[in-house]
Amino acid sequence: MSHPEHPRDDPAKPVTISYIAETAGVSVPTVSKVINGRSGVAADTRARVEALITRYGYRKSSPVQRSNIMELVVDEIEHMWGVEIIRGVQQVVREHRIGLVLTEFGPDRNTIRYWIDDTIARRPECIVTVAQLSVNEQNQLRARGIPFVVLDPTTELPGDVPFVGATNWNGGRSATRHLLSLGHRRIAMISGPGHLYCQARLDGHSSALRSAGLPVRDDDVISAPLTQEGGHSAALRLLRGAERPTAIFAGNDLQAVGVYQAARSLGLRIPEDLSVVGFDDLPIAAMVSPALTTVHQPLTEMAMAATELALALGRGETTSQTGLELATRLVVRESTARPGG
Amino acid sequence: MSHPEHPRDDPAKPVTISYIAETAGVSVPTVSKVINGRSGVAADTRARVEALITRYGYRKSSPVQRSNIMELVVDEIEHMWGVEIIRGVQQVVREHRIGLVLTEFGPDRNTIRYWIDDTIARRPECIVTVAQLSVNEQNQLRARGIPFVVLDPTTELPGDVPFVGATNWNGGRSATRHLLSLGHRRIAMISGPGHLYCQARLDGHSSALRSAGLPVRDDDVISAPLTQEGGHSAALRLLRGAERPTAIFAGNDLQAVGVYQAARSLGLRIPEDLSVVGFDDLPIAAMVSPALTTVHQPLTEMAMAATELALALGRGETTSQTGLELATRLVVRESTARPGG
Repeated sequence: MSHPEHPRDDPAKPVTISYIAETAGVSVPTVSKVINGRSGVAADTRARVEALITRYGYRKSSPVQRSNIMELVVDEIEHMWGVEIIRGVQQVVREHRIGLVLTEFGPDRNTIRYWIDDTIARRPECIVTVAQLSVNEQNQLRARGIPFVVLDPTTELPGDVPFVGATNWNGGRSATRHLLSLGHRRIAMISGPGHLYCQARLDGHSSALRSAGLPVRDDDVISAPLTQEGGHSAALRLLRGAERPTAIFAGNDLQAVGVYQAARSLGLRIPEDLSVVGFDDLPIAAMVSPALTTVHQPLTEMAMAATELALALGRGETTSQTGLELATRLVVRESTARPGG
Repeated sequence: MSHPEHPRDDPAKPVTISYIAETAGVSVPTVSKVINGRSGVAADTRARVEALITRYGYRKSSPVQRSNIMELVVDEIEHMWGVEIIRGVQQVVREHRIGLVLTEFGPDRNTIRYWIDDTIARRPECIVTVAQLSVNEQNQLRARGIPFVVLDPTTELPGDVPFVGATNWNGGRSATRHLLSLGHRRIAMISGPGHLYCQARLDGHSSALRSAGLPVRDDDVISAPLTQEGGHSAALRLLRGAERPTAIFAGNDLQAVGVYQAARSLGLRIPEDLSVVGFDDLPIAAMVSPALTTVHQPLTEMAMAATELALALGRGETTSQTGLELATRLVVRESTARPGG
């Protein structure tokens, strides 16, 4: 069912509906139906047309009717960042008088396969997504001219996908540099799972060690889930060894709380016997005792920036910068000190 | 501008549009415009018609076109319950394949005066609100047949407003009974502000004391904001007295974290020198050290129940029970012990 491509007069110019129709071997009304999300098009035809639209970056020239809603999509709302992100998005939608539709995919992504259909039917101005969208979903959104911005990406994105993240590498580097400056030489890291931002934090940590002329020892890096329990069991492994580290840099604040528990169960005092640094700077960091030194991630500001960017794209504005990272910063509290107190 | 009421044939039967039009001294199309949220009606006329609609409980007999969205409204999303509530609502809307519009009024309620207009324009199936709606807003929703359910009410509600809360009185009583059973006789309470549920918790506490034949001493009850800082300063006042209590029941878990800090700063050990009980059982309760004994409030289940109830009302179903409280339960952890350890 593949159709030959026709030569284009000027490849720099955006394609027309007729060009897509001709290339896909369908009628202009069929392409129009796909673009406007109407029914009556066979699934394979729809997919073929969408693929061409994505390929050529076709955009409707006539403005669609504005729905005054936008969508925020998350996999699972987590305690430790859900509120920060929703607050940021709400702050911006209030200013623009836009309604916010919030979708949580929940524990089983498959349970809401209908999401993309319902979203398209609502004709939102734009989408901010913390969840990973499938290539098919992305194509369907592009075909309807619904822009989406990825917030805090967990994977490498193609160059044309707008995103807002944080400077995770710099954050990881600043945490370990802080510990080095206090005199620590054996600094372990509990890293998160394979997410892009966890890799960046770990690379920042390793970079700081290497800059100080110290080796990055395999034994001193343990990967664990970004939970209290993950931090707890990883810390037990690190601290039970013959030659234990004097400091642990945890992948996030929840893991750091787990490190606290492990230290307590082993009779180690924080920070006298063990320094601990977290990542995120969520409210819990100031509540635990001793208060946690951590890397502040500006989640609310990231959500605000992603929302502003998505709304601008929804208005058809072209922005010079569609990928950005907001700065992290180290917040020193009471959980770090010189080795040996 | 008051108009005489006309006699009704059968007061048990629902009123008609014509009856409302006649009583309000306006035309039938005007009443229809108000009901359907269309423009072109003077503000005072609109208010008069809405008041009559509310009074007589007029409901459209023809089903409105379903929008497949519902709304969740909160004043400010708080860290300690925002995620629980949103998770509960999401779980239900996923099952029903309904989109959720989330509105946070934010720090200044006045900044989104437009909320009611935009909400009506979206024609949601129903509304679950944690925020207090004005009488005017309530009347506008009733006039359009948009049902709303109040989640965790902070004030006394008229009998016809559906709500879902928790058994706060029982929860307060169980907390203090637990402390009494451990042998405590001087049990202080840090209460929240004038919210209905704070009053219920305090009354449950007082009831438990009285049942044990103990006096409720004015000095032993301090009102404070439901924050860590509120708990901290209230606890300092309670613990610095000549004859300090051996146990403190805090209005919520955040206040309890503040009590921990105050105790630490005064050199008091928990639970050896001071027993502490919280309220809510949010994730923080299991993270602090020692882990907090607290009253579990089933926020997610409350949100689920409120959403199911609101959707049922939106479908026009009549439910026998439109006000309910879900059970709280005491969760005993490490922060409570006999007085003196």
